[in-house]
Amino acid sequence: MAQHNAFYAQSGGVTAVINASACGVIETCRRHSDKIGKVYAGHNGIIGALTEDLIDVSQESDEAIAALRHTPGGAFGSCRYKLKDIETHRAQYERLIEVFKAHDIRYFFYNGGGDSADTCLKVSQLSEKMGYPLTAIHVPKTVDNDLPITDNSPGFGSVAKYIATSTREAALDIASMCATSTKVFVLEVMGRHAGWIAAAGALAGNGEGEPPHLVIFPELPFQRARVMQRVDEAVKKYGYCVIVVSEGARYEDGTFLADAGNTDAFGHRQLGGVAPTLAGMIKQDLGYKYHWAVADYLQRAARHLASRTDVEQAYAVGQKAVELALEGRNAMMPTIKRVSETPYEWRIDAAPLAEVANKEKFMPRDYIREDGFGITEAGRRYLSPLIQGEDFPPFENGLPKVAKLDKVKVPRKLPAFEL
Amino acid sequence: MAQHNAFYAQSGGVTAVINASACGVIETCRRHSDKIGKVYAGHNGIIGALTEDLIDVSQESDEAIAALRHTPGGAFGSCRYKLKDIETHRAQYERLIEVFKAHDIRYFFYNGGGDSADTCLKVSQLSEKMGYPLTAIHVPKTVDNDLPITDNSPGFGSVAKYIATSTREAALDIASMCATSTKVFVLEVMGRHAGWIAAAGALAGNGEGEPPHLVIFPELPFQRARVMQRVDEAVKKYGYCVIVVSEGARYEDGTFLADAGNTDAFGHRQLGGVAPTLAGMIKQDLGYKYHWAVADYLQRAARHLASRTDVEQAYAVGQKAVELALEGRNAMMPTIKRVSETPYEWRIDAAPLAEVANKEKFMPRDYIREDGFGITEAGRRYLSPLIQGEDFPPFENGLPKVAKLDKVKVPRKLPAFEL
Repeated sequence: MAQHNAFYAQSGGVTAVINASACGVIETCRRHSDKIGKVYAGHNGIIGALTEDLIDVSQESDEAIAALRHTPGGAFGSCRYKLKDIETHRAQYERLIEVFKAHDIRYFFYNGGGDSADTCLKVSQLSEKMGYPLTAIHVPKTVDNDLPITDNSPGFGSVAKYIATSTREAALDIASMCATSTKVFVLEVMGRHAGWIAAAGALAGNGEGEPPHLVIFPELPFQRARVMQRVDEAVKKYGYCVIVVSEGARYEDGTFLADAGNTDAFGHRQLGGVAPTLAGMIKQDLGYKYHWAVADYLQRAARHLASRTDVEQAYAVGQKAVELALEGRNAMMPTIKRVSETPYEWRIDAAPLAEVANKEKFMPRDYIREDGFGITEAGRRYLSPLIQGEDFPPFENGLPKVAKLDKVKVPRKLPAFEL
Repeated sequence: MAQHNAFYAQSGGVTAVINASACGVIETCRRHSDKIGKVYAGHNGIIGALTEDLIDVSQESDEAIAALRHTPGGAFGSCRYKLKDIETHRAQYERLIEVFKAHDIRYFFYNGGGDSADTCLKVSQLSEKMGYPLTAIHVPKTVDNDLPITDNSPGFGSVAKYIATSTREAALDIASMCATSTKVFVLEVMGRHAGWIAAAGALAGNGEGEPPHLVIFPELPFQRARVMQRVDEAVKKYGYCVIVVSEGARYEDGTFLADAGNTDAFGHRQLGGVAPTLAGMIKQDLGYKYHWAVADYLQRAARHLASRTDVEQAYAVGQKAVELALEGRNAMMPTIKRVSETPYEWRIDAAPLAEVANKEKFMPRDYIREDGFGITEAGRRYLSPLIQGEDFPPFENGLPKVAKLDKVKVPRKLPAFEL
């Protein structure tokens, strides 16, 4: 088997562990240097391939690559850019072939979520439809946990651990203050379409009265009166109320809570956060003093609190991607298979990309409690293993160390290309 | 020296390490069981003393007390309640004496910030003005870092570490996305009157172009045009802009940014966050896509990322408080003395409460860069040692373990008392 080069790129919203997958891909390529020559990273995802904007990863030290394992964000730059169909936008695909030919790239690794899986699937057609010998493998990643077939998506477990931990910690804060001050705390979490992350907040407690007292899911219509009743009950019974709310919380008619017609001082429409909106309602309806937090990027960048399970799985799917490529299994995605629940065991499997792309996995209804404000035991059994274990990064001067890459660009060989 | 009991309580906004001070007080009392009998914790601060709502700490195991060291929040309940003057509200002081007499309390430890120092100072007058033999010691605590004399306040270092770490992590996220998506990230941090916490965000980076690109302090008037110019420059030069903004950011006339006249769908005035307000301005003036986060309680409850320096100092001031009490030094507060900067060394000192109460320490102007958007080397030299070292809590099932106290109430001996 002759030696050819590999392309690796990151796509879509990044996570605390997407670079752990990069580390898995690159280290595994290095171990197969008889078959894989250089790894070229696309600068900003597929855009790097189209514009021949490539980073020569072979010039990075082993230490720098190893440090990717504990560095959040997307080290090579990510993108929100979808390839159009091969039939209607043939020029883009011809360009990809030109770039791959110019740099002898025969392995393509694309690290992303659902939209990126679609891009990877399209690129995988280069071999069959256009005769260029490429093996394309998708490396799964998304905090949204909505990729199908795989038991969970790398990136989710770490957000889940961060949100569950933050909920537990903030709840202790408000529990201390509630006698004479704040009575309600609202934490807004990511997940516009599915409540996986909100559900993870429920891991913070379990026994009677343990916070969070309410989880608000995007899967169920927001009913103001019912929510207010529950908040009031919690404050009266426990002295305080902790709420984890999904950014995707919406009314029966589909309107997002965050888009409830706020205007700023100039009369412009403002898309506020769900947390302040909900907190405002509570103040208005019940009069309770509140605090609210919006974790936003903090939650998906919090590598300092990553789940060890998540880090290991993120690395393993990267490693498996290279192994699949070396077996010539085009258009595949490594998946995580839950082998057993107690004790939790997993292995890496693989699925055809065609069965993954453009499909969303939703949270089973039976993970959400019947009353709609918490998770069931089934939900807990699914979620709990994913946050197990710690994998603290090294610290220097009080701050987490992150990978410092040289990112030497590969000299261009082709004319420029308009996206 | 005869044996008498001690009272300990927590007051004001809690921190990630106030329980480490509780641990220091209680463990040190236990080591001096010849002089100090039982420790009674006030349930919800001074209110616990006034209402005879006392927790018998002697019934907690050594393990439970040791676990306080890694438990955020205020384990015994805190309060926002200020004692009035002894001259005008003599009945409250007489009640305190009744309660202390009834439970043989001769040592009083109050763990709080500036307002609480005032309460402790008033209680300390019981001996001199009312003849009850009490030794009152204030145990410093505040994330605001605004207590005078002490080089820094326990609680601040951990918030500083959390904000600096979160800024660094989130900045890596946005740096990955900025080519095709979010260009500006705004993180709102605590500190209504002083920019200590905002300044800590600046520790995330130092070299040219390293985020955060702007820190917005409450000490300097917010000038929209100047801020927008800087944001625009950062985006054009580095591709993105990370901003750490204090919740106390305000205009020249003193109006808070967060109070800039937003109304909700019903026309009600809303006190929004500074982060969404500032992000909205950026969208309006520059058109950049943004994300924003409000850390709120998450920052001061984040024990999982506490500064080891902070934890050790929090414990040490608790320990010293007991030693001062045993020396009969009424109306004192343990302080942290910076002995040397490189390497950082500190020891515990003590200051008269009269010099501490009702005084605020402001951030020196020479810690803020001349342009007003960052910190100077002097600021960095001050702040950096405070975030050094990690002190991860034990984890169980993927989540930080917290102290489980029995909180057995001391049987009441007195009639009820109206606050």
